[in-house]
Amino acid sequence: MRIAELSRQADVAVPTIKYYLREGLLPPGERTNRNQARYDDTHLRRLRLIRALIDVGKLPVATVREVLAALDEPDLPLHKVLGVVSASLSEQRRPEPDDELAAARHDVDALIARHGWKIAEDTPELDVLAGIIVSARHLGHPHIPDSFDAYCDAAESIAEVDVGYVSDLGSVEKVLEGVVVGTVLGEAALAAIRRLAHQNVSARRFGEP
Amino acid sequence: MRIAELSRQADVAVPTIKYYLREGLLPPGERTNRNQARYDDTHLRRLRLIRALIDVGKLPVATVREVLAALDEPDLPLHKVLGVVSASLSEQRRPEPDDELAAARHDVDALIARHGWKIAEDTPELDVLAGIIVSARHLGHPHIPDSFDAYCDAAESIAEVDVGYVSDLGSVEKVLEGVVVGTVLGEAALAAIRRLAHQNVSARRFGEP
Repeated sequence: MRIAELSRQADVAVPTIKYYLREGLLPPGERTNRNQARYDDTHLRRLRLIRALIDVGKLPVATVREVLAALDEPDLPLHKVLGVVSASLSEQRRPEPDDELAAARHDVDALIARHGWKIAEDTPELDVLAGIIVSARHLGHPHIPDSFDAYCDAAESIAEVDVGYVSDLGSVEKVLEGVVVGTVLGEAALAAIRRLAHQNVSARRFGEP
Repeated sequence: MRIAELSRQADVAVPTIKYYLREGLLPPGERTNRNQARYDDTHLRRLRLIRALIDVGKLPVATVREVLAALDEPDLPLHKVLGVVSASLSEQRRPEPDDELAAARHDVDALIARHGWKIAEDTPELDVLAGIIVSARHLGHPHIPDSFDAYCDAAESIAEVDVGYVSDLGSVEKVLEGVVVGTVLGEAALAAIRRLAHQNVSARRFGEP
């Protein structure tokens, strides 16, 4: 298909597609003459993935490029994919190291140990979580992290479902893409569902009968 | 304290504080002479909250202004606070309405009904979740929303802990602020913990022994 048709099917404006081509997010089409190129379903699928990462995942373009590069890396063993994708997706939130963060990181390590989880030491989320503990203290809410044990229990049952979904997808390529889509869409969905649950629980506790 | 001391204690640069003052995010200090004003602990606390909303919650300045305005509204009944805050926090992600979204919204309403939750019909998260279902379909992953029942079960136990924390805070003002801090920090924490759980579960299923 031509770029106009790709634009129509993906619901993305032609200048935006040209920008993604220039930035290397989308591979070039097959050149048919000096001014035209032909695109196929792989372009359409990739374009929709880019939009999901940007619109739903709110990722900056540079991070989208990193995630797509990990997707296109064929030699990565399957069980390392989550790590790479997760690192690209969370790099932007990693806090600056200092003494206070180091102390909070001990609390995070203790949390992980209590739940018996096997996590690589350099996983960015460990520092992200430590940064959140520091923020909670600065904001006068030092007891918010007490809830994280309950969060771990809930996250464990969610992760069983998520990993089960991804591992049923068949080909390595599909699993890789499923990890990206599932991480980003699942995160947005869980945030929305948690807020709905807040409304339900607080209406029950505080609302009029 | 003077603005330089406020800057030091909050770890926020003076020009940034002046920007928040101009934008009305931070109330003005008590003027001591033509070029100086005095600030107190309420300014420090508010400034830290603004930074948490921007750095941890990744909220745009306009949304931070809305959330703070809800915080400063004294006549709001307690059980409506979560709704207002939640709406301000999620307005940015609300998708454009169309037929496909309307169909997905039916699936969301059925999900909510299955779990027996009481949710106001115009809650933005219902449409946000419908938008995620549409995105999942477009991306070739129509079965991702099958996981949302498990997400609801997990979110319900999380919400019990979250609402319990907030309702123990005492004064209405503290509850209001706790809702904002808990929504934003808790969401970031849950996203990080879910990714850690993914690593743990996938290492167990796919990793070397």
